[in-house]
Amino acid sequence: MKIGIVGLGLIGGSLAKSIKKNTSNSCYGLDINKGSVAGAIAQEAIDGEFTADHLDSFDVVIVSLHPQQTIDFIIENKDRFKKGGIVMDTCGVKGAIVDAVEKPLADSGVNFIGCHPMAGREFSGFAYSVDNLFENASFIMTPTDNTPMRVVKEISSLAYDIGFARVVVSNTEEHDHVIAFTSQLAHVVSSSYVKSPSLLKQSGFSAGSFKDLTRVAKLNEDMWTSLFLMNKEPLVEEIDCIIARLKEYRDAIANNNAEVLHDLLRDGRELKELSLNQSK
Amino acid sequence: MKIGIVGLGLIGGSLAKSIKKNTSNSCYGLDINKGSVAGAIAQEAIDGEFTADHLDSFDVVIVSLHPQQTIDFIIENKDRFKKGGIVMDTCGVKGAIVDAVEKPLADSGVNFIGCHPMAGREFSGFAYSVDNLFENASFIMTPTDNTPMRVVKEISSLAYDIGFARVVVSNTEEHDHVIAFTSQLAHVVSSSYVKSPSLLKQSGFSAGSFKDLTRVAKLNEDMWTSLFLMNKEPLVEEIDCIIARLKEYRDAIANNNAEVLHDLLRDGRELKELSLNQSK
Repeated sequence: MKIGIVGLGLIGGSLAKSIKKNTSNSCYGLDINKGSVAGAIAQEAIDGEFTADHLDSFDVVIVSLHPQQTIDFIIENKDRFKKGGIVMDTCGVKGAIVDAVEKPLADSGVNFIGCHPMAGREFSGFAYSVDNLFENASFIMTPTDNTPMRVVKEISSLAYDIGFARVVVSNTEEHDHVIAFTSQLAHVVSSSYVKSPSLLKQSGFSAGSFKDLTRVAKLNEDMWTSLFLMNKEPLVEEIDCIIARLKEYRDAIANNNAEVLHDLLRDGRELKELSLNQSK
Repeated sequence: MKIGIVGLGLIGGSLAKSIKKNTSNSCYGLDINKGSVAGAIAQEAIDGEFTADHLDSFDVVIVSLHPQQTIDFIIENKDRFKKGGIVMDTCGVKGAIVDAVEKPLADSGVNFIGCHPMAGREFSGFAYSVDNLFENASFIMTPTDNTPMRVVKEISSLAYDIGFARVVVSNTEEHDHVIAFTSQLAHVVSSSYVKSPSLLKQSGFSAGSFKDLTRVAKLNEDMWTSLFLMNKEPLVEEIDCIIARLKEYRDAIANNNAEVLHDLLRDGRELKELSLNQSK
């Protein structure tokens, strides 16, 4: 199979490296950053560069750009992809992407499937891409009622070949609701956390918990602004929920209510344990 | 030097193992859990058991119990410690402990110094203690105006001998303010995080950020209830602060205000980077 990757950043670059390492597919890259392309060729992450004029030579095109760029690139090139071929994306929101590109591509005879490789690092760009980023990671697919089963099967086996630990078939609505909680809320909370006036006094007073809670505050604000605004309702709901919970702890502490505080902490521990058992 | 450890839990047990591994001091243990004592002897983490009647044979007594138990044990035995000897604790709050025990011990001719080994795991008890828990960790001491310099020096060099990466000399007020932010707030936020109705749908949709944000929700609710209530004002201040920040992100997202949201995320990234550079 011949695969084209649009965008050789952290995710696109890591997909290219994993494809070349773990599969027998050929893999070509396109990026406006010529240094990334040169690096990818030098590291044998891709077999060569391609331009938009050659999009129709690929069985699968993986568009691995920021959300709005992903939509723009696909719409602009919708007539250039191979008829009957597959286009997939790698964005952290799915409803907004699928709604924007599935129909225009279908009208051009091209299949689209929304995908989300659940992995990342607090660095971006090809320089940080690695060939084992997806070990132990989930690959989420969000086919719609219109997606041919052949497409789901092909992309699913490609994901397993690449090295993902599991493929999860979901739908855009479920994906966006759960991701608002597991990923987007984590970034909002972490980014809020570092804004205490106490931040610059923490040196020497921090153990693992502070490091864990603030790790993802080091984020790419261009990408996350798009992701958050494309998933507004579920994310606002999650933020409202954690604010309401935080107030319960706050009031129990302010009122010296040991019993209520103890119950809140016990419930939290039990829920965490339940979720750990469920993930096993 | 002859050291007595009261409480062979995660911290007391790890201190015992580190003392035996890295120093030439003798080390004895006291615990109401006879299994922990037997385990500590079998693993050569202590040279033997002792009872409260023999507290006066130790140059240094490390009381490593939960906060209220620490106060109760010290007050109850204040006349049994060696005159001129040193008693230290290992609690995560310092003002409430030092205020309760320093004067009564001084009246009995015993030196007290409040200490906080900045390390932990999301498990408790001797079974989880390890001899390398304090590698890369800070050891915080909070001497008062009454603490003899000899005591600060002796405990500081003991901490370095045990294997701590650095010793930080602070005071009870600074310690309690900064710890409210770096440690206690992390536990409140993590415990609040897992209470979303989305929690039990997360399996397969979670990457590192969810794991990091919720790791410390698995806490010991008895200990943390005490710690929070003994450090009420600074902790309530930090919770109010993060709630106010979360509302800013929430409103920017709800109002589709990309510019404000982008600035909030950029400021968070820059603060995180600043704190990383400061910790180097």
